Amino acid sequence: MSARTSLLGIGDLSPDDIARILGTAERFGAVMERDIKKVPTLRGRTVVNLFLEPSTRTSTSFELAAKRLSADVVSIRGSGTSMEKGETLKDTILTLEAYGPDVFVIRHPQVGACALAGRYTDAAVINAGDGAGEHPTQALLDLYTVQHEVGSPDGLHIAIVGDVLHSRVARSGLRAFRMMGARVTVVAPPTLVPRHLGEAFGVEVSSDIRDIADADVVYVLRMQLERMGEGGFVPSLEEYARMYQVNHARLRPGQRVMHAGPVNRGVEISGAVVDGSDALIEAQAANGLVVRMAVLYDVLAGAASEPGTGDMALEAA
Amino acid sequence: MSARTSLLGIGDLSPDDIARILGTAERFGAVMERDIKKVPTLRGRTVVNLFLEPSTRTSTSFELAAKRLSADVVSIRGSGTSMEKGETLKDTILTLEAYGPDVFVIRHPQVGACALAGRYTDAAVINAGDGAGEHPTQALLDLYTVQHEVGSPDGLHIAIVGDVLHSRVARSGLRAFRMMGARVTVVAPPTLVPRHLGEAFGVEVSSDIRDIADADVVYVLRMQLERMGEGGFVPSLEEYARMYQVNHARLRPGQRVMHAGPVNRGVEISGAVVDGSDALIEAQAANGLVVRMAVLYDVLAGAASEPGTGDMALEAA
Amino acid sequence: MSARTSLLGIGDLSPDDIARILGTAERFGAVMERDIKKVPTLRGRTVVNLFLEPSTRTSTSFELAAKRLSADVVSIRGSGTSMEKGETLKDTILTLEAYGPDVFVIRHPQVGACALAGRYTDAAVINAGDGAGEHPTQALLDLYTVQHEVGSPDGLHIAIVGDVLHSRVARSGLRAFRMMGARVTVVAPPTLVPRHLGEAFGVEVSSDIRDIADADVVYVLRMQLERMGEGGFVPSLEEYARMYQVNHARLRPGQRVMHAGPVNRGVEISGAVVDGSDALIEAQAANGLVVRMAVLYDVLAGAASEPGTGDMALEAA
Repeated sequence: MSARTSLLGIGDLSPDDIARILGTAERFGAVMERDIKKVPTLRGRTVVNLFLEPSTRTSTSFELAAKRLSADVVSIRGSGTSMEKGETLKDTILTLEAYGPDVFVIRHPQVGACALAGRYTDAAVINAGDGAGEHPTQALLDLYTVQHEVGSPDGLHIAIVGDVLHSRVARSGLRAFRMMGARVTVVAPPTLVPRHLGEAFGVEVSSDIRDIADADVVYVLRMQLERMGEGGFVPSLEEYARMYQVNHARLRPGQRVMHAGPVNRGVEISGAVVDGSDALIEAQAANGLVVRMAVLYDVLAGAASEPGTGDMALEAA
Repeated sequence: MSARTSLLGIGDLSPDDIARILGTAERFGAVMERDIKKVPTLRGRTVVNLFLEPSTRTSTSFELAAKRLSADVVSIRGSGTSMEKGETLKDTILTLEAYGPDVFVIRHPQVGACALAGRYTDAAVINAGDGAGEHPTQALLDLYTVQHEVGSPDGLHIAIVGDVLHSRVARSGLRAFRMMGARVTVVAPPTLVPRHLGEAFGVEVSSDIRDIADADVVYVLRMQLERMGEGGFVPSLEEYARMYQVNHARLRPGQRVMHAGPVNRGVEISGAVVDGSDALIEAQAANGLVVRMAVLYDVLAGAASEPGTGDMALEAA
Repeated sequence: MSARTSLLGIGDLSPDDIARILGTAERFGAVMERDIKKVPTLRGRTVVNLFLEPSTRTSTSFELAAKRLSADVVSIRGSGTSMEKGETLKDTILTLEAYGPDVFVIRHPQVGACALAGRYTDAAVINAGDGAGEHPTQALLDLYTVQHEVGSPDGLHIAIVGDVLHSRVARSGLRAFRMMGARVTVVAPPTLVPRHLGEAFGVEVSSDIRDIADADVVYVLRMQLERMGEGGFVPSLEEYARMYQVNHARLRPGQRVMHAGPVNRGVEISGAVVDGSDALIEAQAANGLVVRMAVLYDVLAGAASEPGTGDMALEAA
């Protein structure tokens, strides 16, 4: 990546880019073991977090990642913004761009919003989730987690279970896992799988939950309750849980379980699995912080004017 | 207290603990007299403010206390969080815990929520109000205020007037005042006093506002208007005000008046008393800041790895 | 201005004050050209942003201005505050004042709220918009923009088009432009012009959009859609747009166009004009940041206790 490269989707990255970012994340991970977790790497830089959909974990981890790197952060949330007064995303970005930020981190309910935003700013844009589009930092932290907790994704078998149709987590994750050489099986009700998914991504598709049996890792997707209303993608949550819930009756010991959160205990996953020793959910959260530090560093790396920035400046701030 | 001790209720503290914290607050109070009010004491530490009920004064004073100590602060408010998507408090805490914060400051509408949170994190947890449970930093700042503005609480007579039943301020305050040797009289309509309060806390209970006459300090509780609806604890606000409002007709000069805010002028207290020279309300707010600085310092004190932290590092940051 | 002077309206400033502030903004503007845009000028100072109306650009630019000056910022927004529990502005200010802030930046839906707030604090108060009252930092950034992009306002002809009646932007702008020697023509439907505006401010008033023809700068006011309801100041938005929309058919090349944002594309201004090369809208946003840095510096200048603060401390922070 060159100076101020944006990260809009996993397709923006080559396997080498991914390896470099995860390597940077390793180094920040070592910093997070220290008592003082702050480094001066991005001192004087400004990160604008523009979150136009509710979020806790992604917004908090980006905010904390930026602060741990000593950047200044301004967080703007959907409510109380001028966008409520009818301003377009374009005009919001043009205004914020005028303040000279270094990075925009954007979550938006519509697919393509981050790419659109990128047309109106010289700052790097990081897609923190655009509707049912992509969520590339989630895919990176998932790769990092698999690599740390299970082993190289190359040749691993990963089952992704649930609402792939509406899931940006699945969309970015599928691409990333495939790019790094994993075998992927999607397990979901047919109504929740995009047409031609198998051919497009080179993945197997099944509607039978028993097909997770062979997987090294079972990645459970959140059942987005708000999407289940009138549309009727599934008959009912109870029915969905009966057919597809990932629980101990369906797992064998040692199968690792991932979930991007927030979890619906008792719907797509049982509480016992969430709390069990095979779950990687907390590792995902912890890795989210260091991977987002690495992404912030990476998109700005070439723009470094301070010697301390170029060499990551990992002494305590 | 040892390293990263939580503060869930006043009962967690001995009189010695209280004296130590108030002594620390004195030292920070001296810093607040300076033109530059910031010290490097908690540089590199992370404080997560998780406020799941509306709050201005408590959330602002904790945020400012952390910033004056040079800590990084991430503030999460109820709206716009994943908890709105049905996530449990447990899962929210587990996620945030993964980011390695040093302290959680939590306000939550349910009694016991902070204690529950403490089971899922290694960070210190400070209870900033849990439903009708406790609000220990309020009690500490009230003690500090009495000590500064009136004198040692030992032997003082403090009247607490109003809705004790629903008040975490009263619950923590009663314990703290009693622990430090004050005589306490509760004055309230019988419907707003918990059964067996008198025996449980060693306090006198009266339903006659004239019984404040003998008190050195009259502590007025907020009439929580939102609790007065259908339940009908009092016939009407007008009736409550007629019977129990603390106003100049019921006070003698020199009786000091406290209120944790926000005040309902004209309901539980008259505007003239709020603005009068015997009111300690602004002193309470000011002391809230230094007492919260002291509590943040105290829960982290043993965890210090930097020499500067251990000795409070009171030079300007 | 002396130490901790407030800025409640443009009338608080003399032409000399304005020249000094804009000169300070020039110097901060040079800092913003650097890669590291942060300076230590207000380190250790505390800015409280109290925004009780929705805002993105003003609140963000004040927050970022304070952070670029190394001040600590606490941002309080309308929702989730104690004011929702019925607390008066007076009591909110008294509480926040107790924390010893250096500056309050206040936006409030009622005229005069900032002046009222100023009665209860020793901190400087900056009016960031009080109802249909004033918005002095907008006027300063508009002057700065005219000076930079067009030339000295002295003798320029500025047309202000739209809802002057409800506009604090117009109210402060008119005063500022007139004070600096500009000729001002207001163009608006008669229902949207305050009575006696012409005499009071020494401006020309017209209801014919063709009267912008002679202007060097056309300043377009936002049509506040929320004000157009039952009251019926204009028959309909379509009718307003047909009569008063500023678009290329009504402008000549080289006429510069300003708008304080957020814009309603296709209502008071055409999208083509917003995006055109004669628009100064992005320059206004960028200048807003440096002018607000200058105002924060100016209201605190006399209070400086650090040598570094007094001389603006423009080395990188």
